[in-house]
Amino acid sequence: MRTYARMTGLYAPTLKEDPAEAELASHRLLLRAGMIRKSASGLYSYLPLAWRSLMKIEAVIRDEMEGIGAQEMLVPILTDGELWRQSGRWCAYGPELMRLKDRHEREFALGPTHEESFTDLVRNELRSYKQLPVTLYQIQDKFRDELRPRFGLMRGREFIMKDGYSFDADVEGMQKSYNDEKGAYARICERVGLRALPVVADSGQIGGDTSVEFMALADAGEAEIVYCDGCGFAADTEAATAPINLVEGEEGDLQKLETPGCGTIADLAAFLKVPEAATRKALALVDGDGKPWVCFVPGDHEMNDVKAEHAFGAYHMMSDEELAQYGLVKGFIGPIDLPEGVGSCADESLRNSSWWTIGANDAGYHYVHAKQGRDFTIGRWVDVITAKAGDRCPKCGAPLKAARGIEVGQVFQLGTKYSETMGATFADPDGIEKPFQMGCYGIGVSRMLAAVVEQHHDEHGISFPVAVAPYEVEVVPLDVNDDVVWPVATRVAEELLAAGVEVIVDDRKERPGVKFADADLMGFPYQVVCGKKAIKNGNVELKVRATGERTEVAIDEVASLLSARVISDRA
Amino acid sequence: MRTYARMTGLYAPTLKEDPAEAELASHRLLLRAGMIRKSASGLYSYLPLAWRSLMKIEAVIRDEMEGIGAQEMLVPILTDGELWRQSGRWCAYGPELMRLKDRHEREFALGPTHEESFTDLVRNELRSYKQLPVTLYQIQDKFRDELRPRFGLMRGREFIMKDGYSFDADVEGMQKSYNDEKGAYARICERVGLRALPVVADSGQIGGDTSVEFMALADAGEAEIVYCDGCGFAADTEAATAPINLVEGEEGDLQKLETPGCGTIADLAAFLKVPEAATRKALALVDGDGKPWVCFVPGDHEMNDVKAEHAFGAYHMMSDEELAQYGLVKGFIGPIDLPEGVGSCADESLRNSSWWTIGANDAGYHYVHAKQGRDFTIGRWVDVITAKAGDRCPKCGAPLKAARGIEVGQVFQLGTKYSETMGATFADPDGIEKPFQMGCYGIGVSRMLAAVVEQHHDEHGISFPVAVAPYEVEVVPLDVNDDVVWPVATRVAEELLAAGVEVIVDDRKERPGVKFADADLMGFPYQVVCGKKAIKNGNVELKVRATGERTEVAIDEVASLLSARVISDRA
Repeated sequence: MRTYARMTGLYAPTLKEDPAEAELASHRLLLRAGMIRKSASGLYSYLPLAWRSLMKIEAVIRDEMEGIGAQEMLVPILTDGELWRQSGRWCAYGPELMRLKDRHEREFALGPTHEESFTDLVRNELRSYKQLPVTLYQIQDKFRDELRPRFGLMRGREFIMKDGYSFDADVEGMQKSYNDEKGAYARICERVGLRALPVVADSGQIGGDTSVEFMALADAGEAEIVYCDGCGFAADTEAATAPINLVEGEEGDLQKLETPGCGTIADLAAFLKVPEAATRKALALVDGDGKPWVCFVPGDHEMNDVKAEHAFGAYHMMSDEELAQYGLVKGFIGPIDLPEGVGSCADESLRNSSWWTIGANDAGYHYVHAKQGRDFTIGRWVDVITAKAGDRCPKCGAPLKAARGIEVGQVFQLGTKYSETMGATFADPDGIEKPFQMGCYGIGVSRMLAAVVEQHHDEHGISFPVAVAPYEVEVVPLDVNDDVVWPVATRVAEELLAAGVEVIVDDRKERPGVKFADADLMGFPYQVVCGKKAIKNGNVELKVRATGERTEVAIDEVASLLSARVISDRA
Repeated sequence: MRTYARMTGLYAPTLKEDPAEAELASHRLLLRAGMIRKSASGLYSYLPLAWRSLMKIEAVIRDEMEGIGAQEMLVPILTDGELWRQSGRWCAYGPELMRLKDRHEREFALGPTHEESFTDLVRNELRSYKQLPVTLYQIQDKFRDELRPRFGLMRGREFIMKDGYSFDADVEGMQKSYNDEKGAYARICERVGLRALPVVADSGQIGGDTSVEFMALADAGEAEIVYCDGCGFAADTEAATAPINLVEGEEGDLQKLETPGCGTIADLAAFLKVPEAATRKALALVDGDGKPWVCFVPGDHEMNDVKAEHAFGAYHMMSDEELAQYGLVKGFIGPIDLPEGVGSCADESLRNSSWWTIGANDAGYHYVHAKQGRDFTIGRWVDVITAKAGDRCPKCGAPLKAARGIEVGQVFQLGTKYSETMGATFADPDGIEKPFQMGCYGIGVSRMLAAVVEQHHDEHGISFPVAVAPYEVEVVPLDVNDDVVWPVATRVAEELLAAGVEVIVDDRKERPGVKFADADLMGFPYQVVCGKKAIKNGNVELKVRATGERTEVAIDEVASLLSARVISDRA
C-alpha cells in the first residue's frame, strides 16, 4: 500500500434504483454498490470492491488450510473426458457438466469439481503408505450449467470454489483428515463473519458423521434446517428425525362427534378447543407400486417429500377423484373402518401415542378418545415428518429452532469411491496394494461473499464485517475544496494508513447526502466524517456502520483509536 | 505461518531421470523437481512448490499495478459468443479460440484475452470524461487451443495470464496509461529476477512506440533479438533496421577472376582472403506476382523472411530448375550482364557501397573492383536483411548484441479499435460522444515462471532468485534421528521463521546425498546444512545455491545473518 485509495480512482458504478431482476438482498446490494455485474445468464464479473472482499475470504481460507497442513496447488480447468469416463461421471453428470471438443475432436469438460483430476494426479506418484496422508486443495473458477441460474452469486454457472482432496492409508486417517477440514471450515465461517451451522448431511454406520454441510443462516437460504442452541446439533429438516412434543388426546370411551365443516386440522382444533398437536392428520397417497395408503401424522407436522419418497417410492398424493374411487372422505379420514384395500400407516412419532382425535371416515364426523390397540391398529410405521421449531433436540432434548440456510461449504468422506474405480492405489506396510481412503472438501467462495451480505445488511445497504470489508475505513470529507476540511481528511487518512488500516477517501465533488448514501451502500465498517463544524471543535465524527452509532472524536486521537479497534475486529 | 514447513509434508514428487518429452531446461527441471505435471497435451497442474512461486509473481504484479492505480477485478472465463461477433473476432480468431454451447445452445468462448468483456463491462457505465482514466486488470486462466502445444509452461493451452485494459478520453491519456504500464512491466521483470528487454514491436507515426514486447533473454526463446547494452535499444531481428559495418571491396579497374569451386560466400571469402562482409551475396527469387528478381545483400548478412514478404509479397526462392530457366548460374550471380527480364535489387545497406566483389554470371568466375554506377546499376532498393550481432545500434551507434528471447509480456496501444466496433463511448466536455482510447497489457504469469527457470538454473537444477523462490531457505539436517543434529536444525528453522524467513526443513530419513541433490534440484536460494562435525565446533554450513559458495557459520549467528541477507535479496 503506497497511498490511501480514493473514490475517484475506484471503479464502482453504483445504481440508484433497485435492479428489477434481483430478488435477494445480496444480489440487489452487490449490484447497487457497483461490486458485481452480470455478463450473461449466471455469469458475473467481480468488480474491484467485490474482488477485494473475495481476496480476503481467500486469505482466510489459505491461512486455515495452512494450519491443518493442506497444500495449495492448481489443476487445469479443462479436464480430459477420458478421466470422467473412468470414474463413470461422464454419463452420470448430465447437462450440468459443460463439455467441449478441442481442435483434434478430443473431449473435455470444464471442471465442476475435480475428484478425477486429483485422483489422476496422485495415482502414479503416491506409491507408499509412508507418503501419506496428503491433502491438496485449490481455489479456482468452477463451471456448472445450471438449468435455472439465479440469485446473483448464489447459483451461478461460473463461480469461485475452494476444493480440496485428502488421501489417506486407512479409514481412521481419512476421518482425521475429514475432522481437520471440518474444524477449519467452522473457523473460516466464523472468521469471515458468518453465523453458520455444521449440518449433518449423512451419518456413518459406526457413529459420527461422514458428511456435513456448513449452512449460513439467512432467510434467503434454499435449505430449511433445525438446530439446537444448547448442544450445537443441526440438521436439514429433510434429514432430521427429532423427537416431537407429542400431545395426547383425552382418555375415555370411543365417541363419534359431529364436527361440521371441520375439514382441516386448524378448523378441527379450533372447534374442539385443543392444540393442533393433540389431533392426528390423515394423508392419502398412492405409492410407487400403485397401492393406496392413508398415512397418519401429528396434527401440527407436515409430511416431508424426501422422506416420503424413501418410504413410498415414486408416490403421489390422491386427487379428489382417487379419494372417491377408494371410498375415502376428504377431510374426515381415520383408521377406524378404513375402506378395504387401503393400507394404514403412521409416522414413527405416533407409535406410542394411545389416544387419538381423528376422522371417522364419515363426512362431518370425527372420533375422540380413539385408542390405538383398542379401537384401531396401524399396519406400518414410517419416518415421514419434517422436523420443525419446537421439536426436541435428538442429542440433548432442548427445543429446536428453525431457520433457513445457505450452503457455503461441505466436507465429505469419499472412502474408496474414486480410488477404486480409477485404480489409485498405494503399497501398505506389507507391500499390498490398497486404494486410497479419500475425502473431499468444498467452499463456495463467491457464494460465501453473497452469504456475508445476506447476514450483514440493512435497508441502507451492506454492512461488512471488518474481516471481509473491501476497505476498513472510509474517510468522508464533506467538502473536498474546503481548505480546512480537506487537509484534516488527508491527515486522518494518512495516519490510518500508517497504522496499517485499509482506508479509502471519498474525494468526489459530491453533496454530503450522496457520499453518505454511497458509504452506507458499500458498507465500509467505519466512516470518519470530516465536516467544518466538528473540525472547529478539533473533532471529526466517527460512524459505526453496523450500529449507526456516531461519536465525535478528537482529530488528534481518531487514527490511534480507530486503528486499535479495526485491528481488534480483524482477529 | 504457524510453523516451519517440512519436506515430509510437501507434495513434490521428484524424478530421478530427465523426462523424455522435455526439450527445454524449464520444462525438464519443473517436471523433475515435482513442481508441474502434465494432465493432457498443453495442460499442466501446478504442484505446491510451483504454486508458491506463482503466488509470489502474482504478488509482485499486484504491487506494481497498485502503484500505477490499476484496479484488480475478475470477469468470467466464459464469454458470450455475441460479444465476439460484435468485435468481429468470432470468425477472425480461428481454431485457437475454444468454443462451446451451453444447454440452451447459446455459444460461448473460453477467453484467450478479454478485450470484448472489458469493453462491454464499461460501455454502459463509464459515461463521462470525468470518470476517466480507468485501468482494470485481472489474473486468470486463459485458453488457446494451440496447434502444437509444447515446451511445458512456455506454450500451453491453458495458462495463467495477467491481462489489463485502460480506458482514456484522448490519445495523450492513453499514452500515459500505456507508459505507466510499460514502466510497471519493466519493474515486474526486474523484481522477479528476469533479465528482460522491452522490444519495440510497433512504432507510431508521431514518434514513440505503440507496442512493446518484454523479452526475457534465454537461449530457449522463440524470438531472435538484437539489443544495445549502451542505450537500451532492443528490437526483434525481424523488425530491426540497424546500420551495419559495411566493408567495401578494393578500388580498381573491373577485373574478372577465376574462382573455381567458390559457389558460396564462405568459399569465396577464403579464396580471396577477404572478410565475408567485403563480398556481396546474390539471392534469386520469384515475387508474389511471378516476376524474377536477383537481390543483393552484404556477404555476411541473411535475408529476413518477414521483411522479404513485405518487399516481394508471397515470394519464393528460385529452385535449381527456375535458376536454369531464367539463365542464372547458381553460386556465381552478379549485377553485370544479368539475363534479360530478371530485375535487380539490393538491400538499403548497399545503397552507398561503391566497390563490390560479386558473381560474374559465369560459372567459376567473380568480379572484383565492380563499381556501382560505373559497371552496373541497381534497379530497386529494399529493406530485407536480418540484423545481427555487431551491427550498429540505430540509436547510439554502439555495436549490437544478439540474443534469443521469451515473450513474457506485451503492452499495446489499441486506440479505438474495440470501442468503435462495440459502440463504447463517453461524453466529452462538450457533451459529444466519443469512443474510448484503449490500451491492453498482458503478462504470461505461468510462462514467466518458466522464463525465470530458463535464466536461473545449472546442471544440478533450478536456482531460484529469492523473490520467486517457493521457500527462501532449506534447512538440511544430515541425520534427523541424531539428538545433536535435529535440535540444532529445528532451532535454526524456528529462529529463521521468527525472523520472517520462509523456511523448509528436509526432515526425511534419507541419505545426505539424496537431500543435497533434491535441494539443488528444487533450487531454494540458501541451504543450511546441519551436520555432526560442524556442530561440534558450534557451526552449521551455509550454502548459496546460485554460486555454490559454502561457509561455516556459528549456530548462534546463522539466523540473524541469513535473515538479513534474505530480506535484502527480496527488495
